[in-house]
Amino acid sequence: MTKSETSVSPLTLLRAELTRRGLDGFVVPRSDEHQGEYVPPSAQRLAWLTGFTGSAGMAVALIERAAFFTDGRYTLQAKTEVDARAFELLHLVDAPPAGWIEANLPSGARLGYDPWLHTPDGVTALKEAAERAGGTLVPVDGNPIDAVWRDRPEPPTEPIVAHPLEFAGQDARDKRRAIAETLAKNHLDAAVLTAPDSIAWLLNVRGGDLPYTPLPLSFAVIGADGHVAWFVDRRKIGPGLGEHLGNDVTVEPPSGFGPGLDALGEKRVRVDFGTAPAWVYDRLTASGAKIVRGSDPCQLPKACKNEAELDGMRGAHRRDGAAVVGFLSWLAERGPKGGLGEIAAADKLESFRAKGEHFRGLSFPTIAGAGPHGAIVHYRASRQSERTIEPGQLFLLDSGAQYADGTTDITRTIAIGAVGAEERHRFTLVLKGHIALARARFPTGTTGSQLDALARQPLWAEGLDYDHGTGHGVGSFLGVHEGPQRISKVASAQALLPGMIVSDEPGYYKTGAYGIRIENLIAVRTDGAAENSDKPWLAFETLTLVPIDLALVESASLSAAEIDWLNAYHARVRSEITPLVDAATAQWLEDATRPI
Amino acid sequence: MTKSETSVSPLTLLRAELTRRGLDGFVVPRSDEHQGEYVPPSAQRLAWLTGFTGSAGMAVALIERAAFFTDGRYTLQAKTEVDARAFELLHLVDAPPAGWIEANLPSGARLGYDPWLHTPDGVTALKEAAERAGGTLVPVDGNPIDAVWRDRPEPPTEPIVAHPLEFAGQDARDKRRAIAETLAKNHLDAAVLTAPDSIAWLLNVRGGDLPYTPLPLSFAVIGADGHVAWFVDRRKIGPGLGEHLGNDVTVEPPSGFGPGLDALGEKRVRVDFGTAPAWVYDRLTASGAKIVRGSDPCQLPKACKNEAELDGMRGAHRRDGAAVVGFLSWLAERGPKGGLGEIAAADKLESFRAKGEHFRGLSFPTIAGAGPHGAIVHYRASRQSERTIEPGQLFLLDSGAQYADGTTDITRTIAIGAVGAEERHRFTLVLKGHIALARARFPTGTTGSQLDALARQPLWAEGLDYDHGTGHGVGSFLGVHEGPQRISKVASAQALLPGMIVSDEPGYYKTGAYGIRIENLIAVRTDGAAENSDKPWLAFETLTLVPIDLALVESASLSAAEIDWLNAYHARVRSEITPLVDAATAQWLEDATRPI
Repeated sequence: MTKSETSVSPLTLLRAELTRRGLDGFVVPRSDEHQGEYVPPSAQRLAWLTGFTGSAGMAVALIERAAFFTDGRYTLQAKTEVDARAFELLHLVDAPPAGWIEANLPSGARLGYDPWLHTPDGVTALKEAAERAGGTLVPVDGNPIDAVWRDRPEPPTEPIVAHPLEFAGQDARDKRRAIAETLAKNHLDAAVLTAPDSIAWLLNVRGGDLPYTPLPLSFAVIGADGHVAWFVDRRKIGPGLGEHLGNDVTVEPPSGFGPGLDALGEKRVRVDFGTAPAWVYDRLTASGAKIVRGSDPCQLPKACKNEAELDGMRGAHRRDGAAVVGFLSWLAERGPKGGLGEIAAADKLESFRAKGEHFRGLSFPTIAGAGPHGAIVHYRASRQSERTIEPGQLFLLDSGAQYADGTTDITRTIAIGAVGAEERHRFTLVLKGHIALARARFPTGTTGSQLDALARQPLWAEGLDYDHGTGHGVGSFLGVHEGPQRISKVASAQALLPGMIVSDEPGYYKTGAYGIRIENLIAVRTDGAAENSDKPWLAFETLTLVPIDLALVESASLSAAEIDWLNAYHARVRSEITPLVDAATAQWLEDATRPI
Repeated sequence: MTKSETSVSPLTLLRAELTRRGLDGFVVPRSDEHQGEYVPPSAQRLAWLTGFTGSAGMAVALIERAAFFTDGRYTLQAKTEVDARAFELLHLVDAPPAGWIEANLPSGARLGYDPWLHTPDGVTALKEAAERAGGTLVPVDGNPIDAVWRDRPEPPTEPIVAHPLEFAGQDARDKRRAIAETLAKNHLDAAVLTAPDSIAWLLNVRGGDLPYTPLPLSFAVIGADGHVAWFVDRRKIGPGLGEHLGNDVTVEPPSGFGPGLDALGEKRVRVDFGTAPAWVYDRLTASGAKIVRGSDPCQLPKACKNEAELDGMRGAHRRDGAAVVGFLSWLAERGPKGGLGEIAAADKLESFRAKGEHFRGLSFPTIAGAGPHGAIVHYRASRQSERTIEPGQLFLLDSGAQYADGTTDITRTIAIGAVGAEERHRFTLVLKGHIALARARFPTGTTGSQLDALARQPLWAEGLDYDHGTGHGVGSFLGVHEGPQRISKVASAQALLPGMIVSDEPGYYKTGAYGIRIENLIAVRTDGAAENSDKPWLAFETLTLVPIDLALVESASLSAAEIDWLNAYHARVRSEITPLVDAATAQWLEDATRPI
């Protein structure tokens, strides 16, 4: 007998608890209170309930039936991880939870949700769905999963440290003053901060509550006078930090957050409806505060890196480039012999990185996909699933690291031995798209949605595409994914601004066969001015410094301008990385960066 | 003494009327009750008040001061037309009315607005501005301008005629049934229709209440049962039309519109907040209707032309092409002699078009700009301002016509004699952008905002741009501008769908020197499928059939693919237009379409 037939399933435990509370269902999102990409083990309620370990999903558990939703990236993974007898498996976008609730919630039923784990807009969508079904959506006081989850891990309490001015480039007092001015200009008395990276940026602190991202989890309120009330577990705060924070930051326990919001009654308070929990909205509403919808005021200044942060990113990318080049040189020898496991390859790469100055860990779990595994966009090798890298295959390697002075994220697709003409042709189409974005020059005011098609057009012309964004924002020793900047099909009104960093990562994926992706990080820089205008023209500076595999480049398909770009990029990689690697690696690098 | 010093100005008349009504100010938009591009003379209140004749503007008249707002296209025109001593002249986007009201409306003041002439969202913006100033925004009952506007023209009552099935391609009953299904699927009981082109499309009728656009002005309500209540002046309805409309369309007088809305109490009613007057919103709210915000349900099916409409467009473009080719052949002889006036040129072009079958008039006032006038994007020649076309200049000609089977809009830029290298180079950049969009292939779901940059990139790369959209939607014997489709920087979630028609019109403008624009209409068509998918791939079919001036093409700057496109386009123009023109014109055409 297997375990699932003998033990009581989490779904059964949850249903009993719902019945005890007079609820007919419960919505279980993947997020925690901060709506971030990573959640600590204590908040992995969706994984506890369904077994699903991906980064996007939601479950709705009713008494008689249940459904699990994820997006295209994780459909295959959900099939192996989630019990299809217990959960109907559905597509988060094509068959979203609201529609399923409307169709399946019994009339008169009470559907529960945890107001800490949904944004106000998310609650509205669920509420309308429940009401269309003739039911009601009911907030819970205390998550019912926590009541029945035996051995639930404790919330993390990793120490918080100061992020030095050398790398931050701006004193925290100056940041607070600038945010306070923004609030005052918008006739606001305060803003609630619930995004951990915003708080880390604002206070120039870093922590360790989450994997891959140096963030402490906490909440804060900043007033139009620049004062910050920081609601954070005191156990995380070491002896020297108080001095770093200064007098204008008051440290209060997390339990003080509610009373802190109550004190904002009658005030005009900005809340970011994209990231704040509905709980904040409800509490402020009850306090009589005038809630003003608007983006987290730290988001945009955090996204526009200052010169010290850009210099830090450049240094981190040189060290990271040397590490990846070291690995690729090793792989050029080891790969064609066959039998190298995906996990062993990822570990080897990490060992090269770990030697670098300021290394603080990986910025996300390495995606090392051999052959057909490369076609799984968010693939993560496990001991059970991993393949070995064999001659004749493509090997897709997407990885990155956190350094105290910057965050990296790079994808290279490598030919192991000789590969087919189709692979080379499509790699070249992806490369043309990558170059088109990297070379783009554009006026102030241009958004990432406007530029996205430049990277897709070479593939589109041959009826091909990739089902992910072209670029995501990247933080400065913060999240490897950050907003509001991105290069994406999704309509956006956010202009690309000088200092923003995004990835440039078009790809192509042939299910069951191979995957291709070429990713560099690029920074928005001013580059001249418009004719008869003082409005700056913008262009990208490429930060990543690692050769692109010339064995995969069909040079006859490249234009002269594209060949010039590739040769200039490789010349720069060679000149910046050669001094950082040993003689054998330098020799490999010289060949890998030869002009074509 | 000039006239303005002896007679009482409209602004003075309005202020007296405002005072009589206890108002401290009044907002005067350019729009009528239908928010369309053209307004009948009876609704040209902004022109009466300020003298401004452009298509985008607003005035705010307070007792002590007044302001006039227009956008970048009309800034120069406003300076000549509007009295700067009476009105502060401001930029509609950079210094919008709301900000001016906030800064200038006295505390406690009552600012009036006509709820027929603003959308609900427009009213919200004005209301917030008035309240931030400490005043209130007050709806008027009857427009105060109408009370003091002596000799105000009567509203138009041009006859309404049936639009034959041969050109409409779908019976009006089938259209009503499809819209009714859309409403039912969205749990709606009815939709209010206030856009004249939606009503004309739905009922397969055309009229003549507006210049350049074959529209009757009216209102309608369509129910989820497919029944239409049409609120329209009976004097416009000829004897045969009742039969064409059938039993499911009830004709009611315009005065019945209010009671018609009252009858929707308790119903779920869709209102398009982008085009409906606030008056409709207010009346429905008072009636107890549940207002559901959503797009006009006719908008999308109207935008996706059926095969009969596309065939009509193709036929109209052949006749229009023959007319423009006839004109260009004539201009090739006449132009280099010098002294040809802009108005004479436009009239000559119209005379060629008027000979075409199904010709019903121009689709907008011809823009015929010689030399520096070409740089004025929405230039309209007047007897006072016109220039003559001289050798060495560029001549920009943007024009179009209404035919019973289709609507055209074309811009050509023509070298008169020999022109400079800069003009040729920049014309070639614009051509590269035009070709990039025309050649684009893209997956289902792609929006016009995603494609816009393809047309700009060649200019952007040299620090140049144009300050208008790349393409607007075009109707089928309806408005030459229609939504929701467009090719624009402005973020949009509207995918391009098969049958949609847009213009492809990148440009470049050097103030005081010359203007360049190349415009064809293009239709979205399916073009194969994605790899391993049944989702159609899309591409554009070019409808416009007129040569692009080869004297302006710097062929060394074109790629092989661009030259192939241009030669194939010209071969098609030659083969389709030659049979429709006389021998001399055919000879000119042969040379104008020679391969390069």
